[in-house]
Amino acid sequence: MTGAGASVTLADIEAAAARIAGHAVVTPLIESPALNERLGLRVLIKPETLQRVGAFKFRGAYNRLVQLNADQRRRGVVAFSSGNHAQGVALAAKLLGMPALIVMPSDAPAIKIAATRGYGAEIQLYDRLTDDREAISTAIAAERGCVVVPAFDDRHIIAGQGTVGLELVRQAEALGARLDLVVAPVGGGGLMAGVSTAVKALSPKTAMIGVEPEAFDDTLRSLRAGHRIVSRPATRSLCDALESPAPGELTFPVLQKTLADIALVSDAEVALAMRYAYSTLKLVVEPGGVVGLAALLAGKIKLGAGETVALVLSGGNVDPDLFARVLRGELYSAGASAWADSSR
Amino acid sequence: MTGAGASVTLADIEAAAARIAGHAVVTPLIESPALNERLGLRVLIKPETLQRVGAFKFRGAYNRLVQLNADQRRRGVVAFSSGNHAQGVALAAKLLGMPALIVMPSDAPAIKIAATRGYGAEIQLYDRLTDDREAISTAIAAERGCVVVPAFDDRHIIAGQGTVGLELVRQAEALGARLDLVVAPVGGGGLMAGVSTAVKALSPKTAMIGVEPEAFDDTLRSLRAGHRIVSRPATRSLCDALESPAPGELTFPVLQKTLADIALVSDAEVALAMRYAYSTLKLVVEPGGVVGLAALLAGKIKLGAGETVALVLSGGNVDPDLFARVLRGELYSAGASAWADSSR
Repeated sequence: MTGAGASVTLADIEAAAARIAGHAVVTPLIESPALNERLGLRVLIKPETLQRVGAFKFRGAYNRLVQLNADQRRRGVVAFSSGNHAQGVALAAKLLGMPALIVMPSDAPAIKIAATRGYGAEIQLYDRLTDDREAISTAIAAERGCVVVPAFDDRHIIAGQGTVGLELVRQAEALGARLDLVVAPVGGGGLMAGVSTAVKALSPKTAMIGVEPEAFDDTLRSLRAGHRIVSRPATRSLCDALESPAPGELTFPVLQKTLADIALVSDAEVALAMRYAYSTLKLVVEPGGVVGLAALLAGKIKLGAGETVALVLSGGNVDPDLFARVLRGELYSAGASAWADSSR
Repeated sequence: MTGAGASVTLADIEAAAARIAGHAVVTPLIESPALNERLGLRVLIKPETLQRVGAFKFRGAYNRLVQLNADQRRRGVVAFSSGNHAQGVALAAKLLGMPALIVMPSDAPAIKIAATRGYGAEIQLYDRLTDDREAISTAIAAERGCVVVPAFDDRHIIAGQGTVGLELVRQAEALGARLDLVVAPVGGGGLMAGVSTAVKALSPKTAMIGVEPEAFDDTLRSLRAGHRIVSRPATRSLCDALESPAPGELTFPVLQKTLADIALVSDAEVALAMRYAYSTLKLVVEPGGVVGLAALLAGKIKLGAGETVALVLSGGNVDPDLFARVLRGELYSAGASAWADSSR
């Protein structure tokens, strides 16, 4: 594992922020009076949908790739990802002038595959059910001698994602707001580990709440068990970005130390939240990116009246046809079970 | 006409900004590296889609209503609008505790009618083809003794909308950017008159470019003629928010003084821009709100390489079904002519 060792610190995240400055977008911290009123809270929204590649993943990828030496850059990088990490690595590689090969599941959202290809990466598709993506990319890395860029279990990736937390704490301070809670999605835990590290260092009393899809509650179960549990759900989730089988070796200890709780949301709640984001926030948010909002709207997170919550909307890469179906209520009304084998 | 007289000044706009502070959202000025790269420009996006009611209209409405005296507030207000002004007036009236009656065309977007009703306003629908909305609301105002709140031809409305310009100039300054151009939609001209007044006062060399739908080019024709031309197009536009028959008596002289040019966009170009905003910017923008982006993407605005453009995305209230059809390319591929009598 590249860059493993001591856990990520605030200093690492500040260093990452300096490295990505001028390359990543400093996403704004925005507020919707309508959402505040509906929830009886002050919600400060961090729309990473507005980040390069439409998701926070660019931050970690750039922070990782920019630290490769000349020889490593020449040989390039390989990554496996269902889509957002793929795009982050592909764009970072393009900006830094190095080749990138991305191994993606063949059923990844078409918009994510097309965008990754658009950034100039070579793409190798694999079958999610029959192939082992890690074996594929390890073999490629061995053959080409190139660096594997993990999606989350890497210090530099975690530090890069942590810049989301650094920014939101500082932006909240600038508004004179004290953060009671931070709510963010949890897949492999790279975003949450980074954000938690930054937030807890700067604002120790702020509670961190992760959100997972019901069918992919590996982090919740791992936290309860006290050790990493690998789950291989037979079902799919609407949240393609959060279908991780387990928290990472590096991310899990951080989540153990920092998370106050994990909330679970159903696909139906996710679809409703996407619709709410469309109609009220006017933001395009993908299923995996909207789980925090879904948890808040569904009352899945315990909150005191008038508390201030920072909410990370982590990505906005959603196929137009799926988005259209969500808007028309074609999926929500069918209920969560309809997702298992629907083509998306 | 309420508040007619001397033209709106920067001081009026600054006073409006003070009145709406804490009530309207200070929308961020955001930037998309992907859009910048595509256009070879620096585009600073002012997403008024993130404003209360999902459109800039709240600014002017609140600035107008907050200046009514106790007696006027008790009797309430009446306004006529296809949707965004309706919502702005309805919400401002609700916040200020006064009754509002909104006269809306029966074929206004359902999302706009529902939202206006949701803010507690009484709604009276009229037939766009057979009824005279101004006569209706004037009769109501006479009967109830309440104030009519014009959609654009009012000093306080113009000053309120001008706060968009005030904010964007200051936000651009904070980024160290010098604005070569400002691009914004033109319907009745309230937004453009206000924004132009602010921008020209603070940054006289910045060129102001308005954008109209091809079928509603009344302002372009009026500017060419040197006087206000009232047009009654037989066709409809995808841009329901910009179907004004003529520039206003108050707005037109301002536009004559400040506009460098007007660009026209087709419905097909508007639909493409909505899709681009969805897929690349991750923003929900309504047809009338996206015309500036449409003009930039279609190459309708003359620009030097590397110039800095501020782009106002003025609203995001679009029916889910229409948005779904745009995403699926069902409308764009049919071409602009298909719009004339499609149900939206």
